[in-house]
Amino acid sequence: MNPSFPIRPEAAQTKVSGIVEVVDYGRLKPGLIPLWVGEGDLSTPAFIAEAATRSLAAGETFYTWQRGIPELRAAIAAYMGRVYGRSFSPDRFTVTIGGMHAMQIAARLASGEGDEVIVPTPAWPNFAGALGVAGARVVEVPMTLSELGWRFDANEIARAVTKRTRAIVINSPSNPTGWTATGEELRAVLELARDKGLWIIADEIYGRYVYDDAIAIDGRAPSFHDYAQDDDLILYCQTMSKNWAMTGWRIGWIEAPAALGQTIENLVQYSSSGVPVFVQRAAITALEHGESFVAHQIARARRGREIVYDALAGIPGLVAPKPPGALYAFFALPGRDARATAFRLIDEAGVGLAPGGAFGDNARDCLRLCFARKAEDLEETMRRLEPVLTEIAGAAA
Amino acid sequence: MNPSFPIRPEAAQTKVSGIVEVVDYGRLKPGLIPLWVGEGDLSTPAFIAEAATRSLAAGETFYTWQRGIPELRAAIAAYMGRVYGRSFSPDRFTVTIGGMHAMQIAARLASGEGDEVIVPTPAWPNFAGALGVAGARVVEVPMTLSELGWRFDANEIARAVTKRTRAIVINSPSNPTGWTATGEELRAVLELARDKGLWIIADEIYGRYVYDDAIAIDGRAPSFHDYAQDDDLILYCQTMSKNWAMTGWRIGWIEAPAALGQTIENLVQYSSSGVPVFVQRAAITALEHGESFVAHQIARARRGREIVYDALAGIPGLVAPKPPGALYAFFALPGRDARATAFRLIDEAGVGLAPGGAFGDNARDCLRLCFARKAEDLEETMRRLEPVLTEIAGAAA
Repeated sequence: MNPSFPIRPEAAQTKVSGIVEVVDYGRLKPGLIPLWVGEGDLSTPAFIAEAATRSLAAGETFYTWQRGIPELRAAIAAYMGRVYGRSFSPDRFTVTIGGMHAMQIAARLASGEGDEVIVPTPAWPNFAGALGVAGARVVEVPMTLSELGWRFDANEIARAVTKRTRAIVINSPSNPTGWTATGEELRAVLELARDKGLWIIADEIYGRYVYDDAIAIDGRAPSFHDYAQDDDLILYCQTMSKNWAMTGWRIGWIEAPAALGQTIENLVQYSSSGVPVFVQRAAITALEHGESFVAHQIARARRGREIVYDALAGIPGLVAPKPPGALYAFFALPGRDARATAFRLIDEAGVGLAPGGAFGDNARDCLRLCFARKAEDLEETMRRLEPVLTEIAGAAA
Repeated sequence: MNPSFPIRPEAAQTKVSGIVEVVDYGRLKPGLIPLWVGEGDLSTPAFIAEAATRSLAAGETFYTWQRGIPELRAAIAAYMGRVYGRSFSPDRFTVTIGGMHAMQIAARLASGEGDEVIVPTPAWPNFAGALGVAGARVVEVPMTLSELGWRFDANEIARAVTKRTRAIVINSPSNPTGWTATGEELRAVLELARDKGLWIIADEIYGRYVYDDAIAIDGRAPSFHDYAQDDDLILYCQTMSKNWAMTGWRIGWIEAPAALGQTIENLVQYSSSGVPVFVQRAAITALEHGESFVAHQIARARRGREIVYDALAGIPGLVAPKPPGALYAFFALPGRDARATAFRLIDEAGVGLAPGGAFGDNARDCLRLCFARKAEDLEETMRRLEPVLTEIAGAAA
């Protein structure tokens, strides 16, 4: 990328997200409805932001615990206990600069030069991004799309394992596909990982957003927490971003076997050196008093999904099965180049969607739409999309 | 470190800071004066914190520009222009999660497995920490202490260069030693780096804290900015932490040739995914309206240095030359183990200092004291230290 500067290959090979070029093209279009990133339209609730404000006013502006302040780690453990119906030790949790920093630490713990890490695709491109920066080679295992949804097969994961494999990334519910692992699928992956001595890097950040009662457990997605032991080789990456509308705060956590706590603390020390206390205070408030807001977010997403898929169902030529989880519509216009489509939708519909190619070669005809948005915007979105998508899907079929 | 978990060597080899065990021992001692970390005693000025509060109240809680908001990058460029008396393009600057994140990015750009990076010691241990996480081998070039101060020799750096060398870390003014490079020394390093095609990783975060008029240029320390071209292989790591009392905010920047901007943006994307907008608003306010506070900080540090060194001069048996820059007293009790001394000072003097071994093997008889603190505290500190240090320095000499 920069032939005139002698930078390391791990840095030089980093790719710009395929979403960015579309965003850059459409960012300033008047009236555009932007549904291209994984972010809702609500700013953080005032009661959460005010916790940060109080902390700032109290002068909490100094260095702090590298693992996170003890009150937040206790609040995370308590929250996880409520959601997953079992007890968690705070020793398992280290506070990070968002879920991305958790992923970076997980990538560094589990992998590096000469190692392979398996990633089912389509996938959030930042998995491959962080793994590549750590020096690892990403081995994609393509999932397939049908009218029944995206199909995952643990046997295909098993076939991709080599002597160099060190980890498997499992993102359920998935960004972008909405695929949500059943308990049986999680158990199969866990058994494979145990058998081969592999890490599982588990991204379950959309775990509260599940719409299929046949899959859900207690109203949330199945989790490795339902089947794993504390010392299983699992690194969970989590974030405050989605549930509490805190994308811009950059706070999340990594969960790992407690014996790794000091090593993870060192990795925090030598990357971010911690998370601001005032941001942590807001996170505590969110975890302890934010449940009704999360319920509101989930209800809103459920309604958004209905609006989007009711409209998509009326457009012939799409492959658009309803996703069982997460916050995205991810649908195909078979044979159509989604990148070109995304540009056209900006110009002709005034709607910003993310092109599927950003998530994997097997999704070059797919588009991603984030439905974490108010109903009126989504209704307007679908009114605008319908004629253009109909024309594109129908043209020269 | 965790033989039962198959983690990568780059993670497993990370070390706990040698300061932490002392802090953990003394943290809860009643009445202890803690001077062990690189942090002043003032919380962030209210006018800076209130900029964050206003941003939060305005709902600036969403994802933002990965390189930093344009207003902040412009404010950084303008600030740098004022301090260094030349013009800077905002394209050179990327906002990071503190100076540490900048260092992590610099380490990843410049080095990795099979590479060597030269670090003059004593040095801030996080340089070696970040370089080791990137997979590089740190080659220490020990400086020597005499009554004249810490001696740096560019020829020794040159002799340490091998075919595997990729970068030289230059921290001037230095944490912990206070050594401050002369313009001549910087030019010698720059010529060496140009000659060998090496990166310079420049940590000039204490550049405003210089006490020796024979070295200073316009009241600040000499900088590579005084001698380098924009396309020289220099990665500057900077922070808002020290000048504006913002250690806990976790915001800084990396400065690099503009052609590396996209690669650095990618490295931000795959590590932190940006810095909160409300934190960036505070940084803008600090840069644009914080100059009188910085002047206050500098005057306070100058006074703190006088108090500490006036007292140290009265203790026989120490090697304690006055440092030309930075915020630390770093003095030797020749032949005494500083780790044991640090524990003893906690117990017998109620003062927390950092043991020199945390900064290099050549400083195992040194102690670091941060003098960025109010005069009364420092006077009390020196009253407490004097009898105990006198006894230790004098015993069994």
